Amino acid sequence: MLCYHICKLPGRVMGIRVLRFSLVVILVLLLVAGALTALLPTVKEDKMLMLRREIKSRGKSTLDSFTLIMQTYNRTDLLLKLLNHYQAVPNLHKVIVVWNNIGEKAPDELWNSLGPHPIPVIFKQQTANRMRNRLQGFPELETNAVLMVDDDTLISTPDLVFAFSVWQQFPDQIVGFVPRKHVPTSSGIYSYGSFEMQAPGSGNGDQYSMVLIGASFFNSKYLELFQRQPAAVHALIDDTQNCDDIAMNFIIAKHIGKTSGIFVKPVNMDNLEKETNSGYSGMWHRAEHALQRSYCINKLVNIYDSMPLKYSNIMISQFGFPYANYKRKM
Amino acid sequence: MLCYHICKLPGRVMGIRVLRFSLVVILVLLLVAGALTALLPTVKEDKMLMLRREIKSRGKSTLDSFTLIMQTYNRTDLLLKLLNHYQAVPNLHKVIVVWNNIGEKAPDELWNSLGPHPIPVIFKQQTANRMRNRLQGFPELETNAVLMVDDDTLISTPDLVFAFSVWQQFPDQIVGFVPRKHVPTSSGIYSYGSFEMQAPGSGNGDQYSMVLIGASFFNSKYLELFQRQPAAVHALIDDTQNCDDIAMNFIIAKHIGKTSGIFVKPVNMDNLEKETNSGYSGMWHRAEHALQRSYCINKLVNIYDSMPLKYSNIMISQFGFPYANYKRKM
Repeated sequence: MLCYHICKLPGRVMGIRVLRFSLVVILVLLLVAGALTALLPTVKEDKMLMLRREIKSRGKSTLDSFTLIMQTYNRTDLLLKLLNHYQAVPNLHKVIVVWNNIGEKAPDELWNSLGPHPIPVIFKQQTANRMRNRLQGFPELETNAVLMVDDDTLISTPDLVFAFSVWQQFPDQIVGFVPRKHVPTSSGIYSYGSFEMQAPGSGNGDQYSMVLIGASFFNSKYLELFQRQPAAVHALIDDTQNCDDIAMNFIIAKHIGKTSGIFVKPVNMDNLEKETNSGYSGMWHRAEHALQRSYCINKLVNIYDSMPLKYSNIMISQFGFPYANYKRKM
Repeated sequence: MLCYHICKLPGRVMGIRVLRFSLVVILVLLLVAGALTALLPTVKEDKMLMLRREIKSRGKSTLDSFTLIMQTYNRTDLLLKLLNHYQAVPNLHKVIVVWNNIGEKAPDELWNSLGPHPIPVIFKQQTANRMRNRLQGFPELETNAVLMVDDDTLISTPDLVFAFSVWQQFPDQIVGFVPRKHVPTSSGIYSYGSFEMQAPGSGNGDQYSMVLIGASFFNSKYLELFQRQPAAVHALIDDTQNCDDIAMNFIIAKHIGKTSGIFVKPVNMDNLEKETNSGYSGMWHRAEHALQRSYCINKLVNIYDSMPLKYSNIMISQFGFPYANYKRKM
């Protein structure tokens, strides 16, 4: 009997007192333990799932995956619709949303309440509504590749999967879906435009000298490269709230000594701006937008004291998608 | 007076005799001179033109131009029709016609009688009708690039100009208009085919692993490389009178460690075989042709003890040719 030694103490009353005391001590210990566990964070089932997914995500090689950077202003309905699409794209490592809605809280809570999500999405609250916010160095960015998309642009998953595979073969160039060109004139002043403008050179067809970054893959090192550019370049972008993409093409062309980008013809890419309820329709609708783009080209030529942009007429499509798109008359 | 001193000689008769003598000497000299000029080669106007053109042609940089190698058998009507087209292609340096019509004289005289021609055309009489004759090292070949075309294939000039510019950007690969692939099967035995065959891999679209040399640009060094291959490879081509192009793709893929070719989608390429009066319709109409191609793949895998072919799904087109071929719905 456990209490034999204790029971030999003076009388039964002493034994019962000790027993009661022991029980009280045990109870108190249990209560303390219970209180302590209540202080521990609650590990809900979905958090466990998220933990497992995070481990898997970290395991995904940052060479074989890319980070989506999407800057957004005043079109949160489009943003969320697009995030639902992009979050499911293969080889996506993470999404960084550059939240340019100053003073308005980013929808972290809403996002989390609608979880779980396939990949992490980070909302980066900005201090000022600047076009070049999306070209910062983000500490959360772990991949070699960036996918940069405007917050009104829906690019189909097959297009993204293919374009990413093309970028992996040409990692020093912007691989994207929107080609543009600069056009020289006899006065030496350049103009900015698209296919409606005079094709440079004397051969057949057209040429492009820029691939716009708002629907493209490019090397994440180029964000650092952008940060290191002369202050005049950053000032130009801030003054116009435009031309960050033209500047990136200048910078990259100058850096690699060849054409800055490769155009991949999209099979299915849509602009959703007409679908927003915000009433906001995007910077390119401003009256001065196109003239600003030409202005930027000439300013950048001044700043860099050269025209580094180079022409290309290479258009890449995916062999056999859509089906038999390479069949010819023979 | 000129004759004053002579006129003082005895009498007028002496003066007249000397004058006559002088005239006779002058006449004889003129006749001799005239005879000499008649011996000089007649410089006709068109030869002068040819001389000027030859100087221009030698001046054309052999880095910026290419040599057309066209092998021909029993389709001289097609050959001559095609030569009329190809001789005018920009950046063409020279044509080498591999004359596989053994015992029949090459049409040098006919060709010359229909001159002048923009570029030199050399007819190389062969000693045996072999498929791999066109893969010899030709001493007349001066350019870095070869354009190899079958003698029934008409490729439009814009297609050639564009594909050559693509080859200049990817000079270690076959840049051409006819893609094919090998298909693995669960038995490990390969089959050869085109778009109708199962696309390899699990993604969208199709892949190709070979670009046929009979409508392509490739580096002229690869002719030497072909000559250096194991005798078994040459024997395979001789036995089948087929597969020289499959062999070239094996060799090049092995050599560069990446996909052997880049497919450029032709805008306007025709096969003229139905237009020949010779009654001869080309090797690929033989019953066993396709099976032979699969056979060759497996034999080459044996010979090289590896499958060096690599898949690609990159299809290149010329930006803006035909007009606005890159417009998309937005």
